[in-house]
Amino acid sequence: MTVELTRITADIAEHAAEYDRTGQFPQAGIDIVHQAGLLTASVAGRYGGREVGSLESAHILHALGEGDPSVALIAAMTLFTHAAQARTPKWPEELYAQVLDRSALEPTLLNSARVEPELGSPARGGLPATTARRTATGWSLTGTKRFVTGAHGLSYFLVWARTDETDTRVGTFVVRADSPGITVGNNWNMLGLRASGSVDVEFLDVDVPADHVIDLTDAAAGGQDNRAAAQLNTALAALYLGVGRAAQKEFHRFAHTRVPANLGKPLATTDRFRDLAGEIELQLSGAEDLLFSVIESDAEPTRLLGARVLAVRALTDAVGLAVRSIGNPGLSQDNHLQRHFRNVQSAGVHAPQQDTSIAIIGASALKSS
Amino acid sequence: MTVELTRITADIAEHAAEYDRTGQFPQAGIDIVHQAGLLTASVAGRYGGREVGSLESAHILHALGEGDPSVALIAAMTLFTHAAQARTPKWPEELYAQVLDRSALEPTLLNSARVEPELGSPARGGLPATTARRTATGWSLTGTKRFVTGAHGLSYFLVWARTDETDTRVGTFVVRADSPGITVGNNWNMLGLRASGSVDVEFLDVDVPADHVIDLTDAAAGGQDNRAAAQLNTALAALYLGVGRAAQKEFHRFAHTRVPANLGKPLATTDRFRDLAGEIELQLSGAEDLLFSVIESDAEPTRLLGARVLAVRALTDAVGLAVRSIGNPGLSQDNHLQRHFRNVQSAGVHAPQQDTSIAIIGASALKSS
Amino acid sequence: MTVELTRITADIAEHAAEYDRTGQFPQAGIDIVHQAGLLTASVAGRYGGREVGSLESAHILHALGEGDPSVALIAAMTLFTHAAQARTPKWPEELYAQVLDRSALEPTLLNSARVEPELGSPARGGLPATTARRTATGWSLTGTKRFVTGAHGLSYFLVWARTDETDTRVGTFVVRADSPGITVGNNWNMLGLRASGSVDVEFLDVDVPADHVIDLTDAAAGGQDNRAAAQLNTALAALYLGVGRAAQKEFHRFAHTRVPANLGKPLATTDRFRDLAGEIELQLSGAEDLLFSVIESDAEPTRLLGARVLAVRALTDAVGLAVRSIGNPGLSQDNHLQRHFRNVQSAGVHAPQQDTSIAIIGASALKSS
Amino acid sequence: MTVELTRITADIAEHAAEYDRTGQFPQAGIDIVHQAGLLTASVAGRYGGREVGSLESAHILHALGEGDPSVALIAAMTLFTHAAQARTPKWPEELYAQVLDRSALEPTLLNSARVEPELGSPARGGLPATTARRTATGWSLTGTKRFVTGAHGLSYFLVWARTDETDTRVGTFVVRADSPGITVGNNWNMLGLRASGSVDVEFLDVDVPADHVIDLTDAAAGGQDNRAAAQLNTALAALYLGVGRAAQKEFHRFAHTRVPANLGKPLATTDRFRDLAGEIELQLSGAEDLLFSVIESDAEPTRLLGARVLAVRALTDAVGLAVRSIGNPGLSQDNHLQRHFRNVQSAGVHAPQQDTSIAIIGASALKSS
Repeated sequence: MTVELTRITADIAEHAAEYDRTGQFPQAGIDIVHQAGLLTASVAGRYGGREVGSLESAHILHALGEGDPSVALIAAMTLFTHAAQARTPKWPEELYAQVLDRSALEPTLLNSARVEPELGSPARGGLPATTARRTATGWSLTGTKRFVTGAHGLSYFLVWARTDETDTRVGTFVVRADSPGITVGNNWNMLGLRASGSVDVEFLDVDVPADHVIDLTDAAAGGQDNRAAAQLNTALAALYLGVGRAAQKEFHRFAHTRVPANLGKPLATTDRFRDLAGEIELQLSGAEDLLFSVIESDAEPTRLLGARVLAVRALTDAVGLAVRSIGNPGLSQDNHLQRHFRNVQSAGVHAPQQDTSIAIIGASALKSS
Repeated sequence: MTVELTRITADIAEHAAEYDRTGQFPQAGIDIVHQAGLLTASVAGRYGGREVGSLESAHILHALGEGDPSVALIAAMTLFTHAAQARTPKWPEELYAQVLDRSALEPTLLNSARVEPELGSPARGGLPATTARRTATGWSLTGTKRFVTGAHGLSYFLVWARTDETDTRVGTFVVRADSPGITVGNNWNMLGLRASGSVDVEFLDVDVPADHVIDLTDAAAGGQDNRAAAQLNTALAALYLGVGRAAQKEFHRFAHTRVPANLGKPLATTDRFRDLAGEIELQLSGAEDLLFSVIESDAEPTRLLGARVLAVRALTDAVGLAVRSIGNPGLSQDNHLQRHFRNVQSAGVHAPQQDTSIAIIGASALKSS
Repeated sequence: MTVELTRITADIAEHAAEYDRTGQFPQAGIDIVHQAGLLTASVAGRYGGREVGSLESAHILHALGEGDPSVALIAAMTLFTHAAQARTPKWPEELYAQVLDRSALEPTLLNSARVEPELGSPARGGLPATTARRTATGWSLTGTKRFVTGAHGLSYFLVWARTDETDTRVGTFVVRADSPGITVGNNWNMLGLRASGSVDVEFLDVDVPADHVIDLTDAAAGGQDNRAAAQLNTALAALYLGVGRAAQKEFHRFAHTRVPANLGKPLATTDRFRDLAGEIELQLSGAEDLLFSVIESDAEPTRLLGARVLAVRALTDAVGLAVRSIGNPGLSQDNHLQRHFRNVQSAGVHAPQQDTSIAIIGASALKSS
Repeated sequence: MTVELTRITADIAEHAAEYDRTGQFPQAGIDIVHQAGLLTASVAGRYGGREVGSLESAHILHALGEGDPSVALIAAMTLFTHAAQARTPKWPEELYAQVLDRSALEPTLLNSARVEPELGSPARGGLPATTARRTATGWSLTGTKRFVTGAHGLSYFLVWARTDETDTRVGTFVVRADSPGITVGNNWNMLGLRASGSVDVEFLDVDVPADHVIDLTDAAAGGQDNRAAAQLNTALAALYLGVGRAAQKEFHRFAHTRVPANLGKPLATTDRFRDLAGEIELQLSGAEDLLFSVIESDAEPTRLLGARVLAVRALTDAVGLAVRSIGNPGLSQDNHLQRHFRNVQSAGVHAPQQDTSIAIIGASALKSS
């Protein structure tokens, strides 16, 4: 990690406990990411961006996640959106130019709104109920989306919806967050990533200009490809590995500073804590080496999925071991460790979940033999 | 579980989420336990009590724990105190009679105050810094104790202290909670068992009558025997198994009621949820069968310790599996499951911790072969 | 374990390595079991037997298994057959009397022959292809059975077959091992339990007297009930726990006698080996306490199945840990430990296997909530 | 894996079962490796060799290990010896030239002889008892070495010994295998890698020319550096990952060909086997990606050690899962799977073992924080 990222991690971390407590949108953290230019780090070179690759993106998310995973997750969605546009330009050029102009001036957050109450996760198949009705000037959008990360601070919602046309099409409608008809919920009250605000968003007759639509296609193509999501999800795992490193630092701090009266020296000097530290480091560094290597080598999707499953297991185990080894002090809400512990519980919730990933990997392995 | 205990579990459970939220002393839950006569269930027959054995005590704690583990832990301390007196009477008889009289009228909670800041846990050896100074009428007690469970609602503190005599003695000083000079802290802010209030208590020149002392002995005998603690700790594991059952019920509820749109029937009908339910039931019922059998058969201490280690592992794994399998809904603070998940994280913190238990078991096994 | 059983364990153990090497029928071990009267320990009191209960049977199998699990498995089949007859008499009385008379004189081994090549395990459903053709004097039996444990030393095969009648019936045909037309295979060449000889047996036009048939019933009732098998399989787990104890003894022997030059004292004096010994003892004693308690309390089938799954996991883990901790010496074929390691690999193969058990437990748990 | 390596794997595999059965030196396998030029693949370019790097070496060992890990382990020792000379030339040039000349004509195997009975593994510290006595023409070597892999087929022993000089020195004495005074034992009778013949070798007054000595140094420098061994041991893990892949192929073969009568189609079509295949592939591919990436990037020693620990755990778990899932057929000695299962049990025995590695990693992690 460069010195620069180390400093950003530290700056973000200063605010993390407070946002965790209140569950408010982590504006201070997002401002730090913006000022460091990281929200647009993945913007294509042809638009004047740095166009960082997937490996550097993963390192950025690792650093942000170590500081505050809520900030990292919100930032990730914007980073991924720009990266997708760099890879395969699908946005109307004029609209994208507006977004970039605004991004230069202020934190401009973008995120998809895909999941629906009746649909379960779209990653598991199905069509959206959210509907775009043709109007004279464009579309009128109505529907409810769930788990819209960072909704309270987004500049644009990228709403996946179906049209009301005879031959139904599906596509992504770009909705300015200040459009009339949008209600952002307050229903994010989770154990971890409390400031990520992945709430419900209701759209009621929201006007969308005709040219604010991305990739309108035949409804049959609407299902999300699990394999395509592998790269994105692998990068998200990097974010949680950052949390793992933050937890490790608390564990080390405890080991170095805790001096039991009957021992007369820090716990870090005991074989037991040395071995615990070894197991924790083993899990975290192994997961990092694996994850970054499959990202760097642009491995096939099943290996990306596999690396994510293994990384999530490793970091969850490592942080759990740290907490259990320390006992009560590690569970105290005055100790950052319990926050990190809560945060890593979300590592496995992003689609595709572990069981889906393993099924995909197994089907592929059996087929190729 | 009898119908009676089932009802008590349900009554206590109604208040659990609220006490978890506020962290207040769980008076409503304790009142329910008192009204059911369970706080004094272990009082000896010679004092007119029911004198329930260790197996029935464990079943009681399991039921209370399923309702609210904070209530169960506070009640356990009183139950254990009466059970110890039933087994080996050490209290001054007049004082104990007063305690019983009061217990008949209102919830009368007793608990030891042993741990000290500089001592680490006494279970790991060492003498207390808390000192009883000889006075004309008895003793004057000064010192600070940590992790005094239920301190805000106790009637008596049983304070482990040393005397200021030339030949130092150690013993337990029975201190009325309404004595002048006691300051109960508010430093319990934990991930789980939030209403158990295991706070610091300061004693400053607190008067203790001469006959309010239990078992004053030579300081050399002051260290707590890890093995003696095995029975008590095994019973505590039952409490957390109750939490495990509460978590399982939430998992089943989710499986029965969640109907993903693309599945069209409850998750409980899938092989995956059937197998997850199987693993969870396997862990919980196996841990219960093991724990209750070693308690019932009054097994040797190493087997009690071992049963507790295995039970804590099993219930932690089972609840963790339930949470991970459900994903985001299981982590929502609107779902009881995340509360149960937080609560079971405390299962392993009670002394002796797992590493100590395994060292004791291993030393014993190697010696006997 | 009584002194008597301890001696029998030791006597059997003396021959175990040699039978493991050759894979021959373990006659010397079986003779020891016979002379101790253990092959008929479960014969009903009404037939003059000791009629040991399921708990004592499990203790016997544990002791035999510690000596030689091949001997124990062969003996178990005879013990279980007598126990079934004690519980629900189904044998023709005259035939059973003959068996008991012979049992008094010499080792008289009985075992079912159920599995068939085309059937998979009958525990998973289906009807036998082996057919009993009506003859003037009884039946003529033809078919092939697999996994007939101890086939080379059995006195009677209890062959599960269908009749060639218009209304097909299924039942168990009692076939003397010295009947013409029987071919016992030599196709048992396994990693573990090498002397248990669970080979194929071919029956070609084998005459069976009309009164040598047990429980001829409607074919529809032919499927074996997975739940009924729970008790038997739980008892088999005791056998493998015996192997676990034998492995533990080798681990302790190594720890006590191995003195690395750079340590200057036995490995058993190190914290590392103490903790390893603790984990191994924890697993084995926990599994024993659990298994014996569910057997003793005659727990419901799902808890018996669950106890077996947990016991098999625990003993497999414990023996694996012992082997891995010792390194090369533990893998040497001059060390009994590697034999025990090979033997425990068979612990999970007996039907119902783990996945089936967990599915049954899960379905039951979801149903009852 | 290139087509070439795939063919070599297949050729070696043809002989593996037979060598496993007999425990003989695997000459046919070694000849195949020699003919493919792989025994000298790591010879430095300045000597006319291909000088393959550590990543290609690891891929070679992976391929050989998939064919026969005994062949791979023997070949590895020669490969590593040449690689060490390529990195830091320490051999007398004339002697090394002789070795290379011979290597061009016939398989010329080299291996260190370091471990001694009284020393435990030198990796854990200590000086050799084997002594080189000064003679008129060079040295006379006497002592016993253990675990000399491939001893029955070596061309040269590289014997670590002390001198009998007043100021004791230690160094490596290059001994031709056909020198008088060498006795190669037959004491390799292991569960796995049965043809690797890691036997005792006795040296009794064996003449060694004065210029056949490598790196004679002060005795104080005699201890082997655990960290220096990290690279070598990481490469060995690749060998066992090859075994893991061989085991996976058997698992897939079973899944594709086994058609239970009550299922009517191959097991590979079931969700259960798909998920098992997924978990196995996940473990193996994750371990490969991790291991090859740390080798390629020349990671710091603690990360190499860590990658090896994780790879050994993963491959052991994967092969164990394959065996347990198949049940009896997987344990049959007619099935290659049980051979692979036995072979992977040796994956963890090479120094530094897991506990040592974790202690090193933990000490380093605590220090750097």
